[in-house]
Amino acid sequence: MERGILAVFREAQVTKVPIADGGEGTTEALVTATGGRIVYQQVMGPLGDVVEARWGILGDGKTAVIEVAAASGLTLLSKEKRNPLLATTYGIGQLIKAALDQGIRKLIIGIGGSATNDGGAGMARALGAKFLDRSNNELPNGGAALKNLAKIDVSQLDFRLAETTILLACDVDNPLCGPRGASTVYGPQKGATPAMVAELDQALKHYAELAKSITGKDVAETPGAGAAGGLGAGLLIFTPSELRPGIQIILETAGFEEKVKHADLVITGEGRTDMQTAHGKAPVGVATLAQKYNVPTLCLSGGLGPGHEDVLQQGISGLMSIVPQPMTLEECMVDVDDLVAAATGRLCRLVQVGMQMK
Amino acid sequence: MERGILAVFREAQVTKVPIADGGEGTTEALVTATGGRIVYQQVMGPLGDVVEARWGILGDGKTAVIEVAAASGLTLLSKEKRNPLLATTYGIGQLIKAALDQGIRKLIIGIGGSATNDGGAGMARALGAKFLDRSNNELPNGGAALKNLAKIDVSQLDFRLAETTILLACDVDNPLCGPRGASTVYGPQKGATPAMVAELDQALKHYAELAKSITGKDVAETPGAGAAGGLGAGLLIFTPSELRPGIQIILETAGFEEKVKHADLVITGEGRTDMQTAHGKAPVGVATLAQKYNVPTLCLSGGLGPGHEDVLQQGISGLMSIVPQPMTLEECMVDVDDLVAAATGRLCRLVQVGMQMK
Repeated sequence: MERGILAVFREAQVTKVPIADGGEGTTEALVTATGGRIVYQQVMGPLGDVVEARWGILGDGKTAVIEVAAASGLTLLSKEKRNPLLATTYGIGQLIKAALDQGIRKLIIGIGGSATNDGGAGMARALGAKFLDRSNNELPNGGAALKNLAKIDVSQLDFRLAETTILLACDVDNPLCGPRGASTVYGPQKGATPAMVAELDQALKHYAELAKSITGKDVAETPGAGAAGGLGAGLLIFTPSELRPGIQIILETAGFEEKVKHADLVITGEGRTDMQTAHGKAPVGVATLAQKYNVPTLCLSGGLGPGHEDVLQQGISGLMSIVPQPMTLEECMVDVDDLVAAATGRLCRLVQVGMQMK
Repeated sequence: MERGILAVFREAQVTKVPIADGGEGTTEALVTATGGRIVYQQVMGPLGDVVEARWGILGDGKTAVIEVAAASGLTLLSKEKRNPLLATTYGIGQLIKAALDQGIRKLIIGIGGSATNDGGAGMARALGAKFLDRSNNELPNGGAALKNLAKIDVSQLDFRLAETTILLACDVDNPLCGPRGASTVYGPQKGATPAMVAELDQALKHYAELAKSITGKDVAETPGAGAAGGLGAGLLIFTPSELRPGIQIILETAGFEEKVKHADLVITGEGRTDMQTAHGKAPVGVATLAQKYNVPTLCLSGGLGPGHEDVLQQGISGLMSIVPQPMTLEECMVDVDDLVAAATGRLCRLVQVGMQMK
């Protein structure tokens, strides 16, 4: 984009602000935006294997950014291996612990792309909580085991969590259970059959009731509790977490508001713009904040799908596709850097024509 | 385009000027632009068959527009039937005669897409010229027969041609013969083998020399004489023709200059924009004239190919592809009206953002 802008507005000052929406790329974006660093940590993967998870420490040295997908992601498993009955968020708990060990007390957790449906029980276990059956034996990993949950022991829960702020970048409003719950809505894409969905939904319901009786927190109906297979609920139960739209957290952390105040124009973008974009996705979050300072926002898109015009009602002033001619998605992806630069140039030229007209 | 413009600039006055470049669509464009009418005429097709050729009488009732392709076009023949040795421009001569019969004394002829390589001899024959061999027999149709040309008799040539103006919309500068001539450059796409190319090139050379000795006109080297298989040469030899860039003739005839004077913005377009566009194609012709009145021209394109940026040096201020996302050419063509409307809307919005910035 910078290349395209400077090809037209040669004197422009370009301020780049890496943006993500709490999903893939959030760690990278925030680390880059704040001048932080990437950290690697070996943790338990979704099915008990070892994964090298990538997380970030921001430029302030005091904030960590963790993507759920990095430790417990669906893409860590081949399609045949997916098993939401057994998959665990234990690795996320380990990453939280690793951050706490480094003295970090502010965490940003990007939810999205998890392979799990364990209500965040694995995460809590990694941080000291104990999930016991009637015989006082610890439950195995995974959401299915929670149907046998008889007792939750939080006496050994990491005390440092109490002094920690966790911002949960969450763009879904699903409750934990029921027809709009984690198991029903997201279970199938993680490999759950209808029978598994029913089993998991029941198990999570039981888990939430027990958690309520012990912690006093009733999170089952909280919008977002169903995020990442109920990890949303787990974080709300066991940690001082706040669920907020991902783009808000990212814009705040990246200091976007300070930067946009003095801008003449914002150019943002995303892979595909359609009716979903209008519902709180990154470009609309960017535009909303820019609008506060009367700075117009234009959106470059890898593809303009059905309903993309909706974003024009959400603060975005103009759109452009990066696709210069009939071509396949694969062809676009090979050349995406050059396509973005060229399209940004075209976009700037059209704005320039307008500037010269009046 | 109008739909897209009015979706953004609701108070805009839109003046539509149909444009063509002398090729396909020229008749339609000029008839529409001037409020004329379409006429059909049965004439001889490229291989002696009968074709129903479409031509136009402009709104002034005094000007005809004829496309070479309508009577002698390559698309009138299946690929197997193409034969540049035999194909004739006789039908074009018949159309010229039909126009003269209607009292018309100004003709615009769009050259392009011809199946012929006869130097326009067929055209001249239809208008009364006689092409004879040594035995004073008339030659058969087609370019190959011209090698036996011994005499051209113009005594019976339609005398009304003398009081007629013929504007030849011609965007090529090829001479009649030689390595850049009609046979060598355009013969192969009309079905000529290398041997046929050589035969035709020789025949046209002989024809031009004989024509020169009789009419005193040496047209073999005139740029454009090689257009439409040498029809350019034939028209120059036998009629008072003037070769000019197609877009200039069309813009003039459509009264574009008068209309653009008062415009704030011109939006033009074409199927594909690439390095060739910069060399006198329609959008550049439009932009050049608009630039005279400091009106910016933007170009919408079905595809932006290699070198499309060159047009930015030729008066075009901005470009946009109509392609909203990765898709095939076929998908684009099915939806082209809506794609053009939507892209025009996007283009106008970007201009509007610029207008509001300064």
